[in-house]
Amino acid sequence: MQRRSFLQSALVGGALAALDTSASAAAANGKRPYKLLPCEEAFTIPEILEAARKHARNIPSWASGPIVGPALPLLMDLGEGRLRGMDAAGIDMQILSLGSPGVQNFDVPTAVSLGKLANDRLAAAIKAHPTRFAGLATFAPQDPAAAVKELERCANELKLTGALVNSHTNGEYLDDPKYWPILEALEALNLPLYIHPRDAAPGVAGAAVPGFTVGWGFAVETGTHALRLIGAGIFDRFPKLTIVLGHMGEGIPYFLERIDNRWDFENALFPTSAKLKRKPGEYFRNNFLITTSGMNVAAPLAAAIATVGIDRILFAVDYPFENQPKSVADFDAIALSVEDKRKICETNVRRTFRL
Amino acid sequence: MQRRSFLQSALVGGALAALDTSASAAAANGKRPYKLLPCEEAFTIPEILEAARKHARNIPSWASGPIVGPALPLLMDLGEGRLRGMDAAGIDMQILSLGSPGVQNFDVPTAVSLGKLANDRLAAAIKAHPTRFAGLATFAPQDPAAAVKELERCANELKLTGALVNSHTNGEYLDDPKYWPILEALEALNLPLYIHPRDAAPGVAGAAVPGFTVGWGFAVETGTHALRLIGAGIFDRFPKLTIVLGHMGEGIPYFLERIDNRWDFENALFPTSAKLKRKPGEYFRNNFLITTSGMNVAAPLAAAIATVGIDRILFAVDYPFENQPKSVADFDAIALSVEDKRKICETNVRRTFRL
Repeated sequence: MQRRSFLQSALVGGALAALDTSASAAAANGKRPYKLLPCEEAFTIPEILEAARKHARNIPSWASGPIVGPALPLLMDLGEGRLRGMDAAGIDMQILSLGSPGVQNFDVPTAVSLGKLANDRLAAAIKAHPTRFAGLATFAPQDPAAAVKELERCANELKLTGALVNSHTNGEYLDDPKYWPILEALEALNLPLYIHPRDAAPGVAGAAVPGFTVGWGFAVETGTHALRLIGAGIFDRFPKLTIVLGHMGEGIPYFLERIDNRWDFENALFPTSAKLKRKPGEYFRNNFLITTSGMNVAAPLAAAIATVGIDRILFAVDYPFENQPKSVADFDAIALSVEDKRKICETNVRRTFRL
Repeated sequence: MQRRSFLQSALVGGALAALDTSASAAAANGKRPYKLLPCEEAFTIPEILEAARKHARNIPSWASGPIVGPALPLLMDLGEGRLRGMDAAGIDMQILSLGSPGVQNFDVPTAVSLGKLANDRLAAAIKAHPTRFAGLATFAPQDPAAAVKELERCANELKLTGALVNSHTNGEYLDDPKYWPILEALEALNLPLYIHPRDAAPGVAGAAVPGFTVGWGFAVETGTHALRLIGAGIFDRFPKLTIVLGHMGEGIPYFLERIDNRWDFENALFPTSAKLKRKPGEYFRNNFLITTSGMNVAAPLAAAIATVGIDRILFAVDYPFENQPKSVADFDAIALSVEDKRKICETNVRRTFRL
């Protein structure tokens, strides 16, 4: 796979998927005794596409390619077209975020100004459709001080109630102390941070096996980021910081008991290892929420519920990269009580993002 | 963590764990209406430890450290001490394999000759205790032609009925065509190949987060290896090749539906992607078995059963790096029918390794 053509093609695929409004999903619309508030739903703005094209030679990810295809209108539509798709799928409200990798591939001035612009557009869309849209703030980790200012503006002025980062920035993760002011601000502002995947950092890029770039490599990248935060003691330092992981927790719930077991094994013996107040699993269960984006599948959901509990799981689709009505139908088909479905699709989402 | 001290310390931990013969597990001994045949159980031989010490300056993994500690007798004991531990835990038969990274870090002549020696010692132990031990052949991928010869000797003369590789060799995976003769021989000889973890290859070494080297990094390394085999079309070329993955399939079952979904997404659009006859999940369900090593935990086991089926799951402990009686007690405590437990602990293991 040529990396520069990845999103270009992904967008085409996303369009095909998103435009399939299956009858079965539409038929279920209105029958649920709870609302559907998916929380990993993407948008973008023309200025970011333009900048991605301009910076093509310096940017090593999908953003370097000429981004075309029928999904572009879906990503850029923050109005009637998107609402019609939501209606057809039975989606009550999308919690929106700027499509990966956001502004994290741009030079600092471009990233800071485009991040602000994206947040302004997002706030305008929410203002125009306050019952249909909510949103997560974008920021440029490249300039931590500017990121803190922008997060403050998003929380206090734009009234956004969460933030999203697309995993690494220039190969660095948020456990690096230079990013701690961002984490401190997120905690102080009560903004949950959604860590969304992106193309893998150089240290784990080998997991992006062709054909498995998304299905495996994204989880390696994002799960590694999450474990770095835990291992660095971030949640001892910022105990009220909340992290949201998509894709059913990026694999971590499946391994959580083994992770704790081997953590003890490694740490009982290494005087150089991090000293944490609790086991990794306790931070994961206390400071993390996970979403069903791209994983509205019974078996991993059951394992996740058994591992982190029903109150820590949020519904998500990953529009327009996943088929929106199919994701809803898949979730509908999972054998789970209405009360538990209400928690995942509505109550937990409202509580997490203060909606 | 300093990498060179990893196994040194791991061995100490292993010893502590392995010597804990809990009363509850011992009490259950003899009560099961099926046998316990765990299949990821490690041994080593003094000559390999000596060679690891000698090659310390050239070898970048745990094998470079001075290997000491109370677990060494456990790893090197292929006789009465090991049998007493098995008896205390209720283990009927261990399917043995040379401890990671086997001979894969040595120069070619050393690797080839030490591999033969390890196989001879293993065969002798099985001959001495044919009802208590079975074993998987070691080979040196560094010399594919010699590896093929050794696998033939192990199958035809030593009567070993499986083989084991410790993931990458010098950063390379078995999907590289130069290793295909090994895969061809494994298929022809009807030897299932257990792909065991080791320290991560350079391409994914970033997933070896301190404290999570084993609990996360090992799965990234080994799961990536497995997906590379699938993506390269290995199972179209060698349709009867059987792969065994430990640690509940190294995370792949959790993601299997997403992997297929995103495989379609990537492949519908990339003319450069591999052309496979089937979806990745079909190869995983047909050509792979998974074991419970280090993961005798209800939630991931349930997800794995729902994903690959009860007939594809084998019991394992990971002696002496996991607590043997605790692993047995943990498995005993899982709510599963006796018939399904018999399959996992005995029937599936016998069928897979022709015992």
